[in-house]
Amino acid sequence: MLKTRTCGELRPEDAGQEVVLAGWVNRRRDQGGLIFIDLRDRWGITQVVVDRDSAPEAHSTADQARNEFVLQVKGVVRTRPEGSENLDLPTGRIDVFANDIKILNVAKTPPFYINDDERLEREGLDESIRMKHRYLDLRRQKMQKNIVLRHRALKFIRDYLDKQSFVEVETPILFKTTPEGARDFLVPSRLQPGKFYALPQSPQQLKQMLMVAGFEKYFQIARCFRDEDLRGQRQPEFTQLDMELSFVEREDVMQLNEGLMTALVEAVAPDKTIMQKPFPRILYKDAMEQYGTDRPDIRYDLRAIDVTEIAGQSGFSVFVSNVKDGKPVKCIRAPKMAGDLSGTQLRKVAGELEDLAKKAGAKGLAYMALPNEEDGEVKGPIGKFFTVDQKLALFEAVGAEPGDLLLFVSDKREVCQAVTEALRPNLAEQLGLLDPNTLAFCWVIDFPMFLWDEEEKRWDPSQHMFTMPMPEDVDMLNTAPGEARGSQYDMVCNGHEVAGGSIRIHDREIQKQIFPLIGLDMDRAMQQFGHILEAFEYGVPPHGGIAWGIDRVVALLAGEPNIREVIAFPKTQTGADAMAGAPSDADEKQLADLFIKLDLPEDEDED
Amino acid sequence: MLKTRTCGELRPEDAGQEVVLAGWVNRRRDQGGLIFIDLRDRWGITQVVVDRDSAPEAHSTADQARNEFVLQVKGVVRTRPEGSENLDLPTGRIDVFANDIKILNVAKTPPFYINDDERLEREGLDESIRMKHRYLDLRRQKMQKNIVLRHRALKFIRDYLDKQSFVEVETPILFKTTPEGARDFLVPSRLQPGKFYALPQSPQQLKQMLMVAGFEKYFQIARCFRDEDLRGQRQPEFTQLDMELSFVEREDVMQLNEGLMTALVEAVAPDKTIMQKPFPRILYKDAMEQYGTDRPDIRYDLRAIDVTEIAGQSGFSVFVSNVKDGKPVKCIRAPKMAGDLSGTQLRKVAGELEDLAKKAGAKGLAYMALPNEEDGEVKGPIGKFFTVDQKLALFEAVGAEPGDLLLFVSDKREVCQAVTEALRPNLAEQLGLLDPNTLAFCWVIDFPMFLWDEEEKRWDPSQHMFTMPMPEDVDMLNTAPGEARGSQYDMVCNGHEVAGGSIRIHDREIQKQIFPLIGLDMDRAMQQFGHILEAFEYGVPPHGGIAWGIDRVVALLAGEPNIREVIAFPKTQTGADAMAGAPSDADEKQLADLFIKLDLPEDEDED
Repeated sequence: MLKTRTCGELRPEDAGQEVVLAGWVNRRRDQGGLIFIDLRDRWGITQVVVDRDSAPEAHSTADQARNEFVLQVKGVVRTRPEGSENLDLPTGRIDVFANDIKILNVAKTPPFYINDDERLEREGLDESIRMKHRYLDLRRQKMQKNIVLRHRALKFIRDYLDKQSFVEVETPILFKTTPEGARDFLVPSRLQPGKFYALPQSPQQLKQMLMVAGFEKYFQIARCFRDEDLRGQRQPEFTQLDMELSFVEREDVMQLNEGLMTALVEAVAPDKTIMQKPFPRILYKDAMEQYGTDRPDIRYDLRAIDVTEIAGQSGFSVFVSNVKDGKPVKCIRAPKMAGDLSGTQLRKVAGELEDLAKKAGAKGLAYMALPNEEDGEVKGPIGKFFTVDQKLALFEAVGAEPGDLLLFVSDKREVCQAVTEALRPNLAEQLGLLDPNTLAFCWVIDFPMFLWDEEEKRWDPSQHMFTMPMPEDVDMLNTAPGEARGSQYDMVCNGHEVAGGSIRIHDREIQKQIFPLIGLDMDRAMQQFGHILEAFEYGVPPHGGIAWGIDRVVALLAGEPNIREVIAFPKTQTGADAMAGAPSDADEKQLADLFIKLDLPEDEDED
Repeated sequence: MLKTRTCGELRPEDAGQEVVLAGWVNRRRDQGGLIFIDLRDRWGITQVVVDRDSAPEAHSTADQARNEFVLQVKGVVRTRPEGSENLDLPTGRIDVFANDIKILNVAKTPPFYINDDERLEREGLDESIRMKHRYLDLRRQKMQKNIVLRHRALKFIRDYLDKQSFVEVETPILFKTTPEGARDFLVPSRLQPGKFYALPQSPQQLKQMLMVAGFEKYFQIARCFRDEDLRGQRQPEFTQLDMELSFVEREDVMQLNEGLMTALVEAVAPDKTIMQKPFPRILYKDAMEQYGTDRPDIRYDLRAIDVTEIAGQSGFSVFVSNVKDGKPVKCIRAPKMAGDLSGTQLRKVAGELEDLAKKAGAKGLAYMALPNEEDGEVKGPIGKFFTVDQKLALFEAVGAEPGDLLLFVSDKREVCQAVTEALRPNLAEQLGLLDPNTLAFCWVIDFPMFLWDEEEKRWDPSQHMFTMPMPEDVDMLNTAPGEARGSQYDMVCNGHEVAGGSIRIHDREIQKQIFPLIGLDMDRAMQQFGHILEAFEYGVPPHGGIAWGIDRVVALLAGEPNIREVIAFPKTQTGADAMAGAPSDADEKQLADLFIKLDLPEDEDED
């Protein structure tokens, strides 16, 4: 080994020891006869002191060293004299007095600050530069921390599940294309001309096969692939904790996963607080009504409260006629958001919120601003349409307090939901309610089995075709499929779906009922899923499972808003690896070997 | 949970407990009023007893159950009466007296024996049937054991490396095509028309990037892909333990990996014996001379001994003229292989070995058969060409003992090696020296940096272009590249390369010397490897690593000759997943989305 100790571990009790360190020059200060080098490795930073008088050769080498040079330093650990300690660093009470320094490698000046995350964030940095030089970006303390945290999280999950008798099984990456779901990545086969593998969107089929095979408790940290447009933070390849269990019911899977998540947070992100244990459970329909989404961020309340009855009796004609048309009136209470505002400020704030609401499909957004004083006047154009009693009833319904801003939307149910979804995070941000150190987990359950596809005139599975209906709703498959609930469960945290799963159908008769509902005749079903249906004839146990979005979970644990910060080599928005230059051209022989040729749009063909 | 206990855990001390078991019917015996069901899950088999008199309903359900039905059984644990215990089963001293049985699912009769591995192996089974019904094949005890062993092995490796401060980092599967090495699997990009990702043949470049990034101790259980012809046991996708360390020398990597391998065997395959610790180290040139391969199986000796000097002085004209032409004479001693054979038998045995030798390129294979008696006559046609003294010198050189068969090959060095490689395992098998419970590890080191490519008239890297020359051989790059040794090390076990690695070049000047030697001008080098060369300008530490073939390692731990037995869902020889039917057709829209079309050979196009 070219080092005997790391740059993060030396302490005053090591004083007097001869050590060999190796790492990168984080900073260098030349004070004439003395050169100070902050030497950095994965474990920390240690200050090296080089004295011209006592080690002239080492001093002359140190003199040539620049930031990011790779050095090997031999020296003696010293405690620093009182007053010169750096208590910000765990190694800050010692330094290493060098007697020999070797330049193991030189370095050009990096294109951005590696040694100063704060400055980098203050001054901003084009992400494309970070991505192109990801090997330097990953040297930054923050990125090192994130990648190591990811390792710890996955290690913890594996340890936890191993202790509970789970088996991790690797399933194939070269697998079969399925016309359902998202778009597949295809891989042309050379040995079978004209045929294609598909990269798995998830090991769903394979893990169900493993249940048929009797493994009973399976998991895998699995790579999955979806060739979708890369809106927002989507990545074409992503990592999933994939899990499946036999002889379980919904409650078992939920309990196990809640236990794992709780233990994970406590073990690897002790700076984070889980808002509520056990995780609250929210019915899908309540989530949609109150939060406007099935991925509610419940770090804050700001729920949409149904005030249809009261509003319908008011004198405000929009509400009255909407209510007559069967449209609800919803109210969101933004605590203390209005009390301190002048009339002009209030109109500005309300106007901006109304713009948001309109973007979400509403025709307008009504409001009432409650004064700070108990007996002050309610501001806002619609106040006058409510009698005193109606106002009191309203305030009681939404729990209003002095200074609150009440926002009203009335429209078709879906529009109310969209407006709620749009307003809540915006209000929460304005009110300072988005604490990244709070993890507000909840379960969303009782999803509908199907959503109606108006275009195709058929039902779409709201999760996938192997989701079991809730036992008490099985009969509805024939009579009212739209009302049947599936045994699906989603774990949500801070507005992100972090895991989702269901109990699967293990009863062939139920499966047969599903296919025609979703517009799949038995022939096509056999062609696409024949291997599963066949497997299911040989004694499939009752089973269910779940999959976690690991990139998102780690991002939440790291307090990072963007999953790219917790992936070592993420893709850009065009699916590119900016560092290596992938995807890239293939030569003709490669394509000929695979029995394919390019079929580019005309204008690109002419390039 | 639909079960309270597993089928593997109940013992006499559980007697009297109410339990719920669930699993598959392994066997069922109907003895009139009593039905015995061996209920099986991943953890074992428990005998369930159903009595018609005391539990008529359960009895009638049990009566309908067939092999592989899925049952839930409620009952009471009883100790079996003396004499009726089954001491072959860990649960064989108890049974469960059922009071309630539920059929959770029915099963068709499986296409092969699931409950009788011995019978299956005795009667043989077409592998294609096993692969098509892999979900049933995996139910077999042997396969369950193998897959769980694989899980344990990977878990052990992760624990071991985690304790030594390694970080597991996931690297991309969608990466960049490289024209060097094996053939890539390509993935057409939809977002970048006409471009392709490649699936990684190994994370080699990425792990070196992680060293540039300062992670210092990296590993990954990584999926790798090679689109090669599937001779023998190759799989198009395979699993690698990928590892890279900074600030290390060759010895450090070898020590660490030897320690890990030793600990792994002892922990997860205690029935296996490591033949020699520490692992012997064999120079590449000695391996080639003595074993005819750089993957020697050293469970047995049977080395080729150089007897050129003695044979050149004999009266056997073939040897004499060969030696004059500079060709060596090699002798392999097969202990006790000849003594008991009649002349006819001996000629048959020698003839078969000669056929093997000829297939390997030799013109013939000479032999001497030593009698069992100290003073008996040496048999074989060439004996008479050696004087008594020459024979004695020969016997001493090869350590011959009474009854041994000595085999001689004389030809060009490469032919001698090929013959040695062909004969040794055959002799070992005949002599019963292939014990799967012995793991004979060794290191092969001091590989040549380059092998001469006569066709292309250039040097080929014997490993890859980032392998560092041995420090003392760096100067030879200019003067005698063919003699320079690389810092490569291979770990070999029982004739298989189980791991291979090297110290990498971190010195740009050395890298620049390599490119022209292997016929790569700087322009092409930059185009293909520019991102690495650029990364290496920013302070790359000295580093090196290794990769293990996990499928092979687990196969050795499981005592399985074929890696398919330790892969849950392997591909067949045509790269197919026989169960799911992959690869399969893609529809036109899928191809159009990817800007490719099929380009099939004429006769297939017309289908």
